[in-house]
Amino acid sequence: MPILTLTTDFGLKDGFVGTMKGVIWGICPEAKIADISHVISPQNVLEGAYTLWRAYSFFPAGTVHVAVVDPGVGTQRRPLAIRLGEHFFVGPDNGLFTPVLADVEKNGWPVEIVHLTNKDYWLPSVSRTFHGRDIFAPVAAHLAKAVLLSELGEAIHDPVRLQMPHPEKTNDGWRAHVTVVDVFGNCATDLPAVELAGNDSVTFRLRGREVHGLGTSYGHRQPGELVALVDSENFVEIAVVNGSAARELGAQVGDLVEVVVE
Amino acid sequence: MPILTLTTDFGLKDGFVGTMKGVIWGICPEAKIADISHVISPQNVLEGAYTLWRAYSFFPAGTVHVAVVDPGVGTQRRPLAIRLGEHFFVGPDNGLFTPVLADVEKNGWPVEIVHLTNKDYWLPSVSRTFHGRDIFAPVAAHLAKAVLLSELGEAIHDPVRLQMPHPEKTNDGWRAHVTVVDVFGNCATDLPAVELAGNDSVTFRLRGREVHGLGTSYGHRQPGELVALVDSENFVEIAVVNGSAARELGAQVGDLVEVVVE
Amino acid sequence: MPILTLTTDFGLKDGFVGTMKGVIWGICPEAKIADISHVISPQNVLEGAYTLWRAYSFFPAGTVHVAVVDPGVGTQRRPLAIRLGEHFFVGPDNGLFTPVLADVEKNGWPVEIVHLTNKDYWLPSVSRTFHGRDIFAPVAAHLAKAVLLSELGEAIHDPVRLQMPHPEKTNDGWRAHVTVVDVFGNCATDLPAVELAGNDSVTFRLRGREVHGLGTSYGHRQPGELVALVDSENFVEIAVVNGSAARELGAQVGDLVEVVVE
Repeated sequence: MPILTLTTDFGLKDGFVGTMKGVIWGICPEAKIADISHVISPQNVLEGAYTLWRAYSFFPAGTVHVAVVDPGVGTQRRPLAIRLGEHFFVGPDNGLFTPVLADVEKNGWPVEIVHLTNKDYWLPSVSRTFHGRDIFAPVAAHLAKAVLLSELGEAIHDPVRLQMPHPEKTNDGWRAHVTVVDVFGNCATDLPAVELAGNDSVTFRLRGREVHGLGTSYGHRQPGELVALVDSENFVEIAVVNGSAARELGAQVGDLVEVVVE
Repeated sequence: MPILTLTTDFGLKDGFVGTMKGVIWGICPEAKIADISHVISPQNVLEGAYTLWRAYSFFPAGTVHVAVVDPGVGTQRRPLAIRLGEHFFVGPDNGLFTPVLADVEKNGWPVEIVHLTNKDYWLPSVSRTFHGRDIFAPVAAHLAKAVLLSELGEAIHDPVRLQMPHPEKTNDGWRAHVTVVDVFGNCATDLPAVELAGNDSVTFRLRGREVHGLGTSYGHRQPGELVALVDSENFVEIAVVNGSAARELGAQVGDLVEVVVE
Repeated sequence: MPILTLTTDFGLKDGFVGTMKGVIWGICPEAKIADISHVISPQNVLEGAYTLWRAYSFFPAGTVHVAVVDPGVGTQRRPLAIRLGEHFFVGPDNGLFTPVLADVEKNGWPVEIVHLTNKDYWLPSVSRTFHGRDIFAPVAAHLAKAVLLSELGEAIHDPVRLQMPHPEKTNDGWRAHVTVVDVFGNCATDLPAVELAGNDSVTFRLRGREVHGLGTSYGHRQPGELVALVDSENFVEIAVVNGSAARELGAQVGDLVEVVVE
């Protein structure tokens, strides 16, 4: 039962996503398709990269993940298909797959990257502005039908990588960063919670506000309280119980989070 | 062909919903999954309860409905699986299933409620903040694969119930309430239209505006006219033809609707 | 493997769309369902018509397209099922299918239109306000199960048609119109790019701004630059590279685009 996912900045109004599903089902009628997100901020490749990365590993082995946040559509930027461990990825060569690649390389899993050049697996007519429909959807559908990566183009080894934020070690802790602000206003950071394991006394500073201690869940504190938690990806997250940390603190992606361990 | 539905306040941006689908398909690859809503107002359990209730009965017997509006995630609030008549429900024990339960009990259909305690049917690692992914999605997928309710945990008989609004009888009619404001600005109430059957002369008052008579459809009146109708669930609804009653009247969920029968 | 698509103004909050899927799967459990759009502006039939038209042809032969933007629900406006070439369409008789009809008639493909009158293929109880659920979803599911069009009602030949905008020829070019503003703020027009083939020197005027020449892609120009391009449907489009032409120019659907060829 082939499974595909879609992550784009195409929005929900214009029918672009539905069109991609039509193309996929025309080639692979038995495919199941999950939307990960279609409201990535327009052309925000980093946001798309984080969103795909947080979701992909919960899909079964063999899933084909299509990601299209593609400000360079129509230029010489390469269209790619990638095998990373047991997952496949299809999209533009602009860094969208950076955190997934880092995951996989850290684990030593196999990596295979192909520059899509074989037009036999594209739609017959390719527009300059909608490669999601004309190149990425049909290639992904063929992958889902077990076409070999090597059939689709030529192996490359130099995919574009984004500069991802990383926490910096300081004398008494870390300088971490807000990486994702979710629908609840929770602010995920780039600091793995495991770095704080065993430290009972830790302080987080974000936008002039302080939180002491790393809590366990939203529900164990008072509504409205600012807390630091281990998020669902095992990173440190700043949140307001039953409220929005982002709104209350004015916090945004990229904000500095000072972490002080006593 | 197992069918699941999802109703959450997870929004459409962050990939939480897609992640749940990945977990479900990892366990039950043949499942079909319908989104009911993912833009329930954050942590608004009552809104989630109404939304699920208005949709569930149109799904085939055997459907598994997952609902996650869960301000208590990570606390001692119980995770539940429920069989109500021919439908299954999975989610937190916070009242989300109150109107469905009331429906089913009114009809005398079988009710079976289980406190989810058997971790064999959860993801191996359970976060404190995303039980939709780690508990509810995998349990629902196992239900869809015909695992017995009794396998999943221990029977309970005291699920949390929300205080639902109900119309109060008055000397000359009812004091009803707005229960749902939909995308068109139509204001559904808690007064079953059947209560007004045979009454030709009825007046509705909402936010200082009056409507006389219960109409049949949007289309039989003039655009812009304020009307009272039988809605698609057979309750009384206040609407503006080709316009928004909510916007025009400033009406909100919870508003009083005075109903006077002459 | 039957495929259906849904295009509505039902929004994503209220569960109307999920409800329709429940009805469809109750009749045709093996159906695959793609959402084209559910955020068509309320009751904007022209917008729904364009959105469906831009997507439908990318679905496989035999797909059943359900479209419900239906200000006349509950009145005498006819419910329709249509076969246009290899595609089926189900929805209200209010012009939603005008551009698809025009496409098909231009190509001389078979057209078969039926006024839905056979209630055997509807839900047993039909509301006055939600024919998407009660008539169109069940009829579409039966079509997907290969019920004949002629079973569903009586042939008609006078479907309602919208007045669609068309470019007018002028002495030195065309008076074109903005037909669609997409999520990126790109402004599609009704001028087929083929009309400009071979013309190296062309000027476009929209909201007091001028663009010279018809470019090939967003990526070949500087970010922020106003450009004219061939869009993914082969019409002329006005765009801002990595920006929003709609926001920068204040452009809207219906705006005049003057095209001057030297």
